[in-house]
Amino acid sequence: MRIARFSIDGNVAFGAVEGDSPPGTTEGLVLDIIKGIPFADFELSGTKVPLSKVRLLPPVLPNKVVAFGRNYAAHAKELGNEVPDTPFAFFKPSTSVIGPGDQIAYPSFSQELHHEAELAVVIGRMCREVPRERVKDVILGYTCANDVTARDVQKREKQWARAKGFDTSCPLGPWVETDVDPSDLTIQCTVNGQQRQLGRTSQMIHSIEDLIVNISEAMTLLPGDVILTGTPEGVGPLNVGDEVAVTIEGIGTLTNKVIKRG
Amino acid sequence: MRIARFSIDGNVAFGAVEGDSPPGTTEGLVLDIIKGIPFADFELSGTKVPLSKVRLLPPVLPNKVVAFGRNYAAHAKELGNEVPDTPFAFFKPSTSVIGPGDQIAYPSFSQELHHEAELAVVIGRMCREVPRERVKDVILGYTCANDVTARDVQKREKQWARAKGFDTSCPLGPWVETDVDPSDLTIQCTVNGQQRQLGRTSQMIHSIEDLIVNISEAMTLLPGDVILTGTPEGVGPLNVGDEVAVTIEGIGTLTNKVIKRG
Repeated sequence: MRIARFSIDGNVAFGAVEGDSPPGTTEGLVLDIIKGIPFADFELSGTKVPLSKVRLLPPVLPNKVVAFGRNYAAHAKELGNEVPDTPFAFFKPSTSVIGPGDQIAYPSFSQELHHEAELAVVIGRMCREVPRERVKDVILGYTCANDVTARDVQKREKQWARAKGFDTSCPLGPWVETDVDPSDLTIQCTVNGQQRQLGRTSQMIHSIEDLIVNISEAMTLLPGDVILTGTPEGVGPLNVGDEVAVTIEGIGTLTNKVIKRG
Repeated sequence: MRIARFSIDGNVAFGAVEGDSPPGTTEGLVLDIIKGIPFADFELSGTKVPLSKVRLLPPVLPNKVVAFGRNYAAHAKELGNEVPDTPFAFFKPSTSVIGPGDQIAYPSFSQELHHEAELAVVIGRMCREVPRERVKDVILGYTCANDVTARDVQKREKQWARAKGFDTSCPLGPWVETDVDPSDLTIQCTVNGQQRQLGRTSQMIHSIEDLIVNISEAMTLLPGDVILTGTPEGVGPLNVGDEVAVTIEGIGTLTNKVIKRG
């Protein structure tokens, strides 16, 4: 099931996305409005609205976004970094999250924004110290993410709160796919239609199980929290006016335009 | 005014702390319950309860805690680090926050927890790109913090989400003092009554104004968000059974016991 979060006539709701559409479009897609929230037992209401009539929102409102660094060897190398033996994580704050179609606002404190296409794992239930064999039970599903990075600031500052935590630096969407096997999906990033990144989730150094065991060993994860699993090689600059799209096989496409911060 | 957050009979409220008590105790203190929340215009209800009859909670529920590293030169040096030219920040998640009297749970993935006493700034209103001269307007007040750190994990992992973000790693309290000048206060940390850290906020390399200008340049701060301003020299180990107390002149004392995580 594809679960979207949207607003219509000032109300916010979740809905199940039904139908098929050409890649990157929403033509012909319909939302069956969910009674309740997708983090507990829920029913479809049977009330349907065309997706073209609503505004899609970030598919979840995370309390925290935990992002893992250097989880694809080729990407670590392209930035001249060692491949780490153990995973390491940083946070992106909730204030950095935007949805599909929202604008990435180029901040004045950076002159070098980069795209980083990533598979995002959405946590479905509160958990801590999750054993490897229970990881599947705490996952609601998967969505696309762009770990937008102020590369110049990242190089200068030892910790990355500003470089990777500025407003609009965490596009998520277009929806949460609950029924996909994430172990070997193509992940692609295009800028203005030109391919920049192309990888497969099977190239991750540390698996999704590894990452969730690692972070939940330290801290409680809450429903709606998001885990970013690292970016494949091919990261590069974003400029004002660009349209950046992250597409993950079996999930969908997350598209955002870059504007100058007003 | 000292603004505390507390629970009584299952209800959560804010209250203004009135009266005087011997340092580190709450004897004789009374809470005048606040109508509304302290992030907007509010009134005191006149309904009073002894502080000894309530459970103090973290004085705010931050959306994010932004913590600055190496902001006291003597502390940077004691860990063998350079003093940075520009501030750098990391996040502690909301799931790491505990209140006065709550227990710090020693996690199994570390064998070297350290205390770090810090002055915490509590943000009072939503803001971004705050000009230096307006910084005072976005601050609600000040409280004590302990940036509890898994030093061994911090040394191993390039980014500090696990080392400084584990559950219970962010004690805050005992209340928010709105009427203190933060520019030259003594800040002290004791473990089992023995002094470990002693500094003055005037020793900060980057001032509170610098820090808030720096972080708000990148991201929106929300009411209740907390800025940790760095720790003076003298950090050292915490062991199961220890009682650690952070005292800041003109604010109060934040005391927490260390237990083994259950």
